[in-house]
Amino acid sequence: MNYLFSNRMSGLQPSAIREILKMSSDPSVISLAAGNPAPEAFPKEEIAAISQEILTNNPIAALQYSLTEGYPALRDTLKDFVASRYGIGKSFDELIVVSGAQQGMELTCKVLCNEGDTVICEDPSFIGSLNSFRSYKANLVGVEMEEDGMNMAALEKAVDANPNTRFIYVIPNFQNPTGKTMSYEKRKALYEIAKARHLIILEDNPYGDLRFAGEDIPSIKSMDTEGIVIYVGSFSKVLAPGMRVGYLVGHQEIVAKIIVAKQCTDVHSNILAQMICHEFMTTRDMAGHLQKLKAIYKHKCELMLGEMDKHFAKCVTYTRPQGGLFIWCTLPDGVDMVEFCTRAVKEYKVAVVPGSAFSIVEGTPTQSFRMNFSTPTDEQIIKGIEILGKMTHEL
Amino acid sequence: MNYLFSNRMSGLQPSAIREILKMSSDPSVISLAAGNPAPEAFPKEEIAAISQEILTNNPIAALQYSLTEGYPALRDTLKDFVASRYGIGKSFDELIVVSGAQQGMELTCKVLCNEGDTVICEDPSFIGSLNSFRSYKANLVGVEMEEDGMNMAALEKAVDANPNTRFIYVIPNFQNPTGKTMSYEKRKALYEIAKARHLIILEDNPYGDLRFAGEDIPSIKSMDTEGIVIYVGSFSKVLAPGMRVGYLVGHQEIVAKIIVAKQCTDVHSNILAQMICHEFMTTRDMAGHLQKLKAIYKHKCELMLGEMDKHFAKCVTYTRPQGGLFIWCTLPDGVDMVEFCTRAVKEYKVAVVPGSAFSIVEGTPTQSFRMNFSTPTDEQIIKGIEILGKMTHEL
Repeated sequence: MNYLFSNRMSGLQPSAIREILKMSSDPSVISLAAGNPAPEAFPKEEIAAISQEILTNNPIAALQYSLTEGYPALRDTLKDFVASRYGIGKSFDELIVVSGAQQGMELTCKVLCNEGDTVICEDPSFIGSLNSFRSYKANLVGVEMEEDGMNMAALEKAVDANPNTRFIYVIPNFQNPTGKTMSYEKRKALYEIAKARHLIILEDNPYGDLRFAGEDIPSIKSMDTEGIVIYVGSFSKVLAPGMRVGYLVGHQEIVAKIIVAKQCTDVHSNILAQMICHEFMTTRDMAGHLQKLKAIYKHKCELMLGEMDKHFAKCVTYTRPQGGLFIWCTLPDGVDMVEFCTRAVKEYKVAVVPGSAFSIVEGTPTQSFRMNFSTPTDEQIIKGIEILGKMTHEL
Repeated sequence: MNYLFSNRMSGLQPSAIREILKMSSDPSVISLAAGNPAPEAFPKEEIAAISQEILTNNPIAALQYSLTEGYPALRDTLKDFVASRYGIGKSFDELIVVSGAQQGMELTCKVLCNEGDTVICEDPSFIGSLNSFRSYKANLVGVEMEEDGMNMAALEKAVDANPNTRFIYVIPNFQNPTGKTMSYEKRKALYEIAKARHLIILEDNPYGDLRFAGEDIPSIKSMDTEGIVIYVGSFSKVLAPGMRVGYLVGHQEIVAKIIVAKQCTDVHSNILAQMICHEFMTTRDMAGHLQKLKAIYKHKCELMLGEMDKHFAKCVTYTRPQGGLFIWCTLPDGVDMVEFCTRAVKEYKVAVVPGSAFSIVEGTPTQSFRMNFSTPTDEQIIKGIEILGKMTHEL
């Protein structure tokens, strides 16, 4: 049979990263392509113990249907956490637990955008979010990234050129894929631009607790006096992505609509996982755990940057992130980036992600690629960078 | 701020059931309104033991990112299960794990329907599925339910009157809310109607393994020589709904599109829960567990029907389901059903769900209400039915 798919989905392809990750499942390939937490970063003994406690002491609550908005004790704990850590939570705000931050992006787009409405994004940006916006046929408009975040003049131009803009999507801390952090001045400017035009800002902060250098910068949501910022956080990078637990904070009117949408999607998020997150935050040493994570990623990032400084040709530039999981590497003009990445994985067995995967307008030429330092071992980082370094000298 | 929501979501209200369930959270209310498994039906010791085994022996796999299509071992086990139990699985079919059957409905509608496309449903039908179709602005068209399923002449008429029909949604076994089962003849007729018009059938079977009387009837998917049936199953009623694990079987081209859509939604379903389902099915006595469940529900259903036979006025009619969780009760013409249900909960503290919640066209008058026998205790069933019985004699 000739299947007829919806317009919104018929053009959407599987994520390009997913295809690269399939290639890198070959054990002889050194993968710098993933975005997975380091295996040694999981507090696996604690999670096993907590899970046992819950399933022994409170099994019915952990197995029965639960509330769409999330496990009440976890919601309370998270409200306290975002208030103290990020200055988030006005009297008009509400918090909902979602099935990973990805669901926060998807539901936001579902409740805010008609097909053809504009979503403005940093260019490049996280492909998972972009695809979830594309899956509602949103019109994606990219704004060029500078070292300290979006070019604000270009943002104003983009907003004014697209009167059907519904929201502006940003990852202010250690952005995926660039590793860049938006400056305080730009966060304030972004908020003012959105406020003047009654636009929503979708602030995605999966890596905020993985800062291993420099100083924290206030969240955009902390500036939100108008109820125009939706903030999304996640346990995927700080506890365990397999649990699929994230959370979204926004004006209660928006959250009420998102609750209705979530009820239609998965009724509620896995409740045992929500209870595990709550117990971990309240009965274990969350602060100590985060310190441990930051030490792991600081070490891996410094190792990778050090090896790059040693081995990479000087014509190659790259970001020096203060947190997160990614380094963004740019090849000189005239070099065929896609061919470089393809040769790296096929001939030299080192996988990176071509930057084109993160372009807002698919097919835009780019000279950059993304490297991940959280998943590979030290040995893999040293070996992989040496190989890529040799390749850069042959450009 | 005056928030502007998408057209698809702006009209959608929270489920009416949800509001009634909130009223019935008052501990003095006897709730016959929910659709939860009986608390004594959870194999809680086994799930605690399995969870411990997994988190001790294989913690990283249970905590790390996983595949969108689902845990490979569970997918294999489920393919064997649906083949042997329901005759499901042609060479063109594929299986994907979803975050509860609800997600199967939502993703099917997302990939198949443009806004305004028609979805034909049994009338009445499950509000959760209806709302997920509504959340994509599908045009819902209802077909009257008879004792043995949809009226087939009315179905043909509905299909022919709506050339933009994309799929037909049915719950053939112990339907929610009516408890009715579609006959073999109607299943065959439905398949032939869909086949002749190149339409998809969405077969939702959450209760199929809860048959406690009568004989199994072949699934519609088992008749599927053309690749036009999408089958959705769930662990919610047979293991634990809090885990949010279901599965969808369909032609591989459809499943490939659903994988792309799921990647945009929640990346993958909670992986520990998927591993628990797999271990339970392969290392524990699944058949014995299902026997135990069926005995619990047979007892509760017979108890409720017996009490209804004893106490209800003869002018009230009701279904006698052979499985599932629900009985559908119809008041005589001229009685105000909504007023009856409201009085039951407010004055007499017995909660049932007004049948209007399940109407395809919201606001259609109906004389029926839904009662659930799986969640209340025996004492609650006896007391609740006695109270409702008295009310029926005052009609």
